[in-house]
Amino acid sequence: MSTAVISSDAIASLQAHLPEPPIPLGSYVAVVRVGNLLYTSGVLPMKDGKLAVTGAVSDDTIEQAREAARLCVLNTLSLIRHELGGTLLPLRRVIKLTGFVSSLPDFYEQPQVLNAASDFLVEHLGDAGRHVRSAVGVSALPKNASVELEMVVEIMG
Amino acid sequence: MSTAVISSDAIASLQAHLPEPPIPLGSYVAVVRVGNLLYTSGVLPMKDGKLAVTGAVSDDTIEQAREAARLCVLNTLSLIRHELGGTLLPLRRVIKLTGFVSSLPDFYEQPQVLNAASDFLVEHLGDAGRHVRSAVGVSALPKNASVELEMVVEIMG
Amino acid sequence: MSTAVISSDAIASLQAHLPEPPIPLGSYVAVVRVGNLLYTSGVLPMKDGKLAVTGAVSDDTIEQAREAARLCVLNTLSLIRHELGGTLLPLRRVIKLTGFVSSLPDFYEQPQVLNAASDFLVEHLGDAGRHVRSAVGVSALPKNASVELEMVVEIMG
Repeated sequence: MSTAVISSDAIASLQAHLPEPPIPLGSYVAVVRVGNLLYTSGVLPMKDGKLAVTGAVSDDTIEQAREAARLCVLNTLSLIRHELGGTLLPLRRVIKLTGFVSSLPDFYEQPQVLNAASDFLVEHLGDAGRHVRSAVGVSALPKNASVELEMVVEIMG
Repeated sequence: MSTAVISSDAIASLQAHLPEPPIPLGSYVAVVRVGNLLYTSGVLPMKDGKLAVTGAVSDDTIEQAREAARLCVLNTLSLIRHELGGTLLPLRRVIKLTGFVSSLPDFYEQPQVLNAASDFLVEHLGDAGRHVRSAVGVSALPKNASVELEMVVEIMG
Repeated sequence: MSTAVISSDAIASLQAHLPEPPIPLGSYVAVVRVGNLLYTSGVLPMKDGKLAVTGAVSDDTIEQAREAARLCVLNTLSLIRHELGGTLLPLRRVIKLTGFVSSLPDFYEQPQVLNAASDFLVEHLGDAGRHVRSAVGVSALPKNASVELEMVVEIMG
């Protein structure tokens, strides 16, 4: 098991990026805790309360899709912070990302899209941000979002 | 961690809806227990031993898709009941749903489809039925099913 | 909880099939340990360092897709062996497979594809290889892979 500890400076720097937590689109919750793990619902690329990046991704729109992945991870961390009472300090490490990318049938760069989320986590959290990941191209996402991201993190016991 | 307790009346009411458990389509099992968690295989909208709702979903077929989501959750709960020896009384809470909706490329209401499953759980189990959820639109599902659902639940220790 | 124990002969037989572990396509890791569980990243059908099976699957290419599923499970087990210091002896059981099959919109035999992975596990590990599974058809996978597989396994405490 990782013994990485995330510094409070790193947490502060990370939190400076976070938006208000988005609102679930149905009768489910944003975060569930099971022991020391937090599972999040699939999160869309929201910005200022609106879906910011829509449409099936192609090689021509990969930069927008990367921004969508980054927004997803920010919104997810915001939901986790909210669940933890307003601070990410109890965060121990990121376990897993599952990223669904709305993809035209000839778009195969889902990893490049999701790297924008993974890189953000590692940049801010170091080794504690390293995670397993699946990147999948799908035919359509809720509200025509370009990316949907779910996350599992571990918190302090 | 949730301290919700599900009443035996709620369980009895829920169980009245459940069909016979469906049979896996290959060399895998329907439910695996890990500690106090039960993971289920992806379940299709079976009814009376047959796949009841097929085809890619569009805005025109959203009601059938919602019925498919409801059938998936009933079949999943039936599998869990079977795993637990014929009763859902040990059920503590629902942790997570992952719902795959076979979707035409311009269908974006996967959350509305999955709400039929989520609402059913909350209606019958109250706070113990609240879960995290991902809703994803995909190009094709086994046997041309309209919906596939996997679930994670927690049981009493 | 399963009390199955995997024999060292079974492990040796299984390991004889395994390739070198593949390299992640981004800033994530191949395997994360949480307690006694190992989660793996989505793995592609690599062979001799190259992606071996590409393209959306149809009824005409189901055998190639089954070979892809088998390659995915071999690569995943190779990653797990690497994580465990070069041996699969600590493996206790397989918990879960999630298999994404790049599918033409009229291809519905994802379970038949994934059975090649599930059957391999059960053939080599017996009851300890039995797992829950979701099989999903998607519009596109990284690098145009035909199959992507993620796995959760339990190891000895």
